[in-house]
Amino acid sequence: MPFIHVEVLEGLSTEKKQELVKEMTDMFVRIAGAPQERVFIFFEDLKRDNYARGGSLVSLLPPPSTAPAATGNEGK
Amino acid sequence: MPFIHVEVLEGLSTEKKQELVKEMTDMFVRIAGAPQERVFIFFEDLKRDNYARGGSLVSLLPPPSTAPAATGNEGK
Amino acid sequence: MPFIHVEVLEGLSTEKKQELVKEMTDMFVRIAGAPQERVFIFFEDLKRDNYARGGSLVSLLPPPSTAPAATGNEGK
Amino acid sequence: MPFIHVEVLEGLSTEKKQELVKEMTDMFVRIAGAPQERVFIFFEDLKRDNYARGGSLVSLLPPPSTAPAATGNEGK
Amino acid sequence: MPFIHVEVLEGLSTEKKQELVKEMTDMFVRIAGAPQERVFIFFEDLKRDNYARGGSLVSLLPPPSTAPAATGNEGK
Amino acid sequence: MPFIHVEVLEGLSTEKKQELVKEMTDMFVRIAGAPQERVFIFFEDLKRDNYARGGSLVSLLPPPSTAPAATGNEGK
Repeated sequence: MPFIHVEVLEGLSTEKKQELVKEMTDMFVRIAGAPQERVFIFFEDLKRDNYARGGSLVSLLPPPSTAPAATGNEGK
Repeated sequence: MPFIHVEVLEGLSTEKKQELVKEMTDMFVRIAGAPQERVFIFFEDLKRDNYARGGSLVSLLPPPSTAPAATGNEGK
Repeated sequence: MPFIHVEVLEGLSTEKKQELVKEMTDMFVRIAGAPQERVFIFFEDLKRDNYARGGSLVSLLPPPSTAPAATGNEGK
Repeated sequence: MPFIHVEVLEGLSTEKKQELVKEMTDMFVRIAGAPQERVFIFFEDLKRDNYARGGSLVSLLPPPSTAPAATGNEGK
Repeated sequence: MPFIHVEVLEGLSTEKKQELVKEMTDMFVRIAGAPQERVFIFFEDLKRDNYARGGSLVSLLPPPSTAPAATGNEGK
Repeated sequence: MPFIHVEVLEGLSTEKKQELVKEMTDMFVRIAGAPQERVFIFFEDLKRDNYARGGSLVSLLPPPSTAPAATGNEGK
């Protein structure tokens, strides 16, 4: 407890996920009084042709004009 | 808002998913008054050896006698 | 199959939900070839103090200036 | 993007949830490059007689010997 | 591990849920080699006007002709 | 009804999943009075670098000292 499911666009690196895991776990221990070993986090990598926003699959959206940093988070 | 998660047997084409996305988005705008850009849809492709009905994994069910259209929706 | 989970802000009426159910079911039968009796839809009513966007729980957001129709969809 | 679902034992106050929302949103903006307005967080309050661990519903577990702070997080 | 989410029509008693918890936990320990204290089970009680099958909310379906045992599982 | 989602570490064999499906289905028929053909079970295989416990992704945890049985359930 807690159980945290994170859906994020495919492309987020393992290093970034581990950074998020560390900070989120510390935060729930500090704010919600959760025992550290009972903080569970699950990432789900959303494929661009399985995730849609505003009436279109992200894979079919025109690429954003500026080239964002290589975080794999284009078209969020 | 809304956030719509659709679990469907693997094999549904991207074209069909986009067709569903378009119609579902328009429907939630029309019926639920949702702003179009805030309708989020997530598809999850169920693998036949990870989905079970009536006591059996779908991958272990006998193939249906008639060969359904190639929508990948056998054994739904 | 399919299994469709819809998270929507609390307040959407049963009549609107049934309208959505009818149209979504027909759509999946027509587009994805699903048998009607195997289309499953689950609504989840999001409470305003359990749903957050852009750094704030919706319950703590300033009310929108114009009063939208009572579809319970303010602050989506 | 991202979409974060947090299941936590019932009893966590709205103030604590907002504190978690603020920090988690800032974190995903900083680490994952997410646009702030596109960070969505959903809390689900687990009822003690609907959540089980180690073979028992939490509501049927003996109360912990020490009385933890009133964060509603007993028997996590 | 594992994490088991069970959606069931509202009305299933706490006694039955505990019976299911006990048997499911033992089963995952026996078959999947899971440590007992790491088997997590979550029940979600589906309201009849939030769950639909075959084009209709269950709450709007005609009551089944025979009256099943009061397990709260009418119109499954 | 019921709809059962099982998240388990990747590596559980199809044979074990079918064994679990069979027993869980019989259990819900026996205890909850569910019709067998309406028991739906969904497995989700958790990747070690997408699942975290106690502040670390499982993929980054030191391998357990004793070699557990090859059920693919290390570092649950």
